[in-house]
Amino acid sequence: MAKLVECVPNFSEGRRPEVIEAIVDEVRKVEGVKLLDVKPDASHNRVVVTFVGEPQAAKQAAFNACKKAAELIDMEQQQGEHPRIGATDVIPFIPVKEVTMEECVALADELAREIAEKLEIPVYLYEDAAKIPTRRALPDIRKGQYEGLKTEISKPERKPDYGPARMHPSAGATVVGARQFLIAYNINLDTSDVNIAKKIANSIREAKGGFKYVRAMGISVEAHGREVAQVTINMVNYQGTPLFRVFETVKNEAARYGVNVIGSEIIGMTPMQALLDVAEYYLRLDGFERKQVLEDSL
Amino acid sequence: MAKLVECVPNFSEGRRPEVIEAIVDEVRKVEGVKLLDVKPDASHNRVVVTFVGEPQAAKQAAFNACKKAAELIDMEQQQGEHPRIGATDVIPFIPVKEVTMEECVALADELAREIAEKLEIPVYLYEDAAKIPTRRALPDIRKGQYEGLKTEISKPERKPDYGPARMHPSAGATVVGARQFLIAYNINLDTSDVNIAKKIANSIREAKGGFKYVRAMGISVEAHGREVAQVTINMVNYQGTPLFRVFETVKNEAARYGVNVIGSEIIGMTPMQALLDVAEYYLRLDGFERKQVLEDSL
Repeated sequence: MAKLVECVPNFSEGRRPEVIEAIVDEVRKVEGVKLLDVKPDASHNRVVVTFVGEPQAAKQAAFNACKKAAELIDMEQQQGEHPRIGATDVIPFIPVKEVTMEECVALADELAREIAEKLEIPVYLYEDAAKIPTRRALPDIRKGQYEGLKTEISKPERKPDYGPARMHPSAGATVVGARQFLIAYNINLDTSDVNIAKKIANSIREAKGGFKYVRAMGISVEAHGREVAQVTINMVNYQGTPLFRVFETVKNEAARYGVNVIGSEIIGMTPMQALLDVAEYYLRLDGFERKQVLEDSL
Repeated sequence: MAKLVECVPNFSEGRRPEVIEAIVDEVRKVEGVKLLDVKPDASHNRVVVTFVGEPQAAKQAAFNACKKAAELIDMEQQQGEHPRIGATDVIPFIPVKEVTMEECVALADELAREIAEKLEIPVYLYEDAAKIPTRRALPDIRKGQYEGLKTEISKPERKPDYGPARMHPSAGATVVGARQFLIAYNINLDTSDVNIAKKIANSIREAKGGFKYVRAMGISVEAHGREVAQVTINMVNYQGTPLFRVFETVKNEAARYGVNVIGSEIIGMTPMQALLDVAEYYLRLDGFERKQVLEDSL
């Protein structure tokens, strides 16, 4: 089993296809890396690129793409709805297989140093890679955006973790870090009453005394040919707070209102382990090991 | 995602390490194939070899190993406790990933023809690859073993599916086929009363009106530091009869006797899909697709 990390860099270009293509091409060209998704957004003027690969290969691909973005995006010109501080706005590494969070933190640190030294771009470290506690959350680093940070970067409290205490003339600054895989998970309720979904969302979200690694809202969606109330969830650490626990809690809370759970859905990707954990839980599996999964043996 | 089959050939040699090694080496040498397990049994005088690989590579490895076994094993000399008809006794192909049962049947048919033509060994097709309904079950093909088949092979009803209607002078005959992956699955009960396990086993096994693809017995085992009754199960087709259905049924039947299920265990390997099906069932997942599993995208 090879070590595998995911990397999801965000670049501040969502409008010029040739620029997006040139950046993405830097990822494609690196051996040991596989491009999974490219999601440009014109109004945000931003593109989210997703790839997986061996740690060192992923780092190389991220560096090359960042270098290309610095050449092709001029932050003095860039405008868009999404907050940003640089041409490469943020680069998170995510452990997927046989890789610890500590290894991803080390990888983020190496990349941050490399970007600072070779490209002369100031770099901030965030989330699990943060060296300064107040820099864990991305919005705190991004405060004032490109324009604001340009003047504030020389202040001691905004000094970058690596690189010069002044913005790169065109590429601005960049944030690099490590975080857990985020699973987008929705649970549909057999009611159209969105207030029930909102109450249940409050019962599971960290901010309201719920699970530490759960962000949740109650919304109304079209599903199964009608309007249903949905608890829409970001599972920001599926090992810390597993899917089955959230599902069972939502089921129990819904019963409080006499409402059934119709079903749930995973939006986009999930690491296999998140679903193996579900199977282990419900089958009450004893001593199950990942290496018993046949596909993993190849 | 590459196509993947499993192949579990059984050879009639469990005592001479150098012969086992020479046969296994034929598997190792084929590119696109990975050897997973080699289980020799001296009293059976038999070795069970497990490997996975791309369909054509797996077929090649099986052919090469069969050829080597024909050179090194003389059925006129071979003795052992396990019933057998040839040097290579049986070769089943098992679909694992992105491969249908029909493809495995076709693969078995190609291999059977190749063994018959190139090695002049008579070959019978069994299980899902059987062309003659009475040849689905291995014991029916193996009736009379090597010694008995030697005289009976010339009878019309025992004519091989491919190859000469006489035994190969040293290698005997071979059985080739396709079957589903077999999952060895045990469920432990919170009681030492083995009769309860036996009654529950009867409620789920096909032979007693239970699930079509379930073979089960009630036994007594040491687990959790004490003697517990266990329902020990062979899931012979985890898609036809899924794990969750068997687990839930055992749980319900146990409740009939006021007994709880302590836990369950998967012995050895399982295809990932068997556990994904469990997660899908319990989370009531809507529209989940295999390609959402991150590891599968590499």
